[in-house]
Amino acid sequence: MRTAYYISDGTAITAEVFGHALLSLFPVEFEHITEPFIETEEKAHKIVNKISESFQRSGERPLVFYTIVNKDVREIISTSKGIHYNFLDQFVAPLEKAIGVPSKPEKHRTHSIHEKTYDIRIDAVNYALANDDGVNLKDYNQADIVLVGVSRSGKPPTSLYLALQYGIKAANYPFTDDDIGDSLRMPAALRQYKDKLFGLTISPERLVQIRSERRANSKYASMQQCRMEIRQVENLYRKEKIPFLNSTKYSVEEISAKILAETGLSRNKY
Amino acid sequence: MRTAYYISDGTAITAEVFGHALLSLFPVEFEHITEPFIETEEKAHKIVNKISESFQRSGERPLVFYTIVNKDVREIISTSKGIHYNFLDQFVAPLEKAIGVPSKPEKHRTHSIHEKTYDIRIDAVNYALANDDGVNLKDYNQADIVLVGVSRSGKPPTSLYLALQYGIKAANYPFTDDDIGDSLRMPAALRQYKDKLFGLTISPERLVQIRSERRANSKYASMQQCRMEIRQVENLYRKEKIPFLNSTKYSVEEISAKILAETGLSRNKY
Repeated sequence: MRTAYYISDGTAITAEVFGHALLSLFPVEFEHITEPFIETEEKAHKIVNKISESFQRSGERPLVFYTIVNKDVREIISTSKGIHYNFLDQFVAPLEKAIGVPSKPEKHRTHSIHEKTYDIRIDAVNYALANDDGVNLKDYNQADIVLVGVSRSGKPPTSLYLALQYGIKAANYPFTDDDIGDSLRMPAALRQYKDKLFGLTISPERLVQIRSERRANSKYASMQQCRMEIRQVENLYRKEKIPFLNSTKYSVEEISAKILAETGLSRNKY
Repeated sequence: MRTAYYISDGTAITAEVFGHALLSLFPVEFEHITEPFIETEEKAHKIVNKISESFQRSGERPLVFYTIVNKDVREIISTSKGIHYNFLDQFVAPLEKAIGVPSKPEKHRTHSIHEKTYDIRIDAVNYALANDDGVNLKDYNQADIVLVGVSRSGKPPTSLYLALQYGIKAANYPFTDDDIGDSLRMPAALRQYKDKLFGLTISPERLVQIRSERRANSKYASMQQCRMEIRQVENLYRKEKIPFLNSTKYSVEEISAKILAETGLSRNKY
């Protein structure tokens, strides 16, 4: 199997995202190796040797995706036996021309604590944790958004992604049996935050599947119960004009991006 | 202010990561606009108009970073008045040559539910939520790693990042006053998981600052208390040979990447 290396003197997250996006265009399996924090010439030489070993083992030149600020380290990596993709460099000269100012590579730390909105994002994560699963309603006044939906429709991971990725304070509130009863009405505690509510829904088949992994053969995971709960929440969303999204076919990344696009909620990170 | 657009027929996450990494090289402020899910020609024409308006308003040609699978949509976007950076395309031809197979762009959905390890990542997020803050020790046998440290040293956001980004099941356990007492010993409940423990520590100054935002002028946030707690946990890490990291100057992304590099923990996502 061919090897793909992601190398950086930082976290290597940028090299990974870039490399993965490119490799996902190919119907080929790769062995992935990430080498973060390659900050010294000594470490760089070790990686160059490792790349040679991968080459010898597989008989195919490894792909090497890298973003490295330190020029000496970068030059050592570029002598490896791999095929090199130093994607930032290729775009820097055209961008300098377009923007009209020289780049300052020493500032390039995209995933550091110095990133402008870092503290906002961490606050948002702590907020999402403290306001997960319908606890702590008293702090909903601080929420940017309150995700609502039946149990296991994807609220907690979405709340956390919104926080971590975008610095958005997302609380989440599950409609429980008590709420649903014979006919779901807006819980009194939520009414004052109505403008912040965003509903998630899901197909009954998928909900049965997810709930069965937790509690197989329970009423909770039965098709009848799942259908009933979903019908009730969708009725509520329509009646109360709560915007909502069917999460069945979407990842948390897609759900989060769609919520941002639909609500116009302003992000705290770019 | 110059505008930067991030456009995609998916989440636009790849376009954003790429564009942000590039723009962070420049000492210039930008207005950032993300346009995800541009899947139709109609939507594409709207964006082209929006880009023209940005150009007229600012007098500077917007930068347009995009990754679009649909050829018709892509071609419409490329007629905008912006300066275009279609970064995937530039690397596809060389990669096809290197790998020796043609690309299959229709497969390009890097942030979808079909991504191989998606369910593993969501399970890991749910695990991190259920095992946050020292609750639920009975499930530590399932943990890939157990983060330990004093209150507010960065454990929960790191656990969640490890889960969401890498599909790693991370529990976290705070050493409390009860644990620390006169001299911190390994809590009995943790001893059987000793091989999974990873310690976080932090500078007393930074800990005082973080705790003061929560409970100003408390014993909890006092320099004396913070110093004492940190001294005790660092002694424990050394005595019990628990690997540890000082998180003071690092972001959760950096802490997570460093933990992976140090422990050799295997990732479930690439």
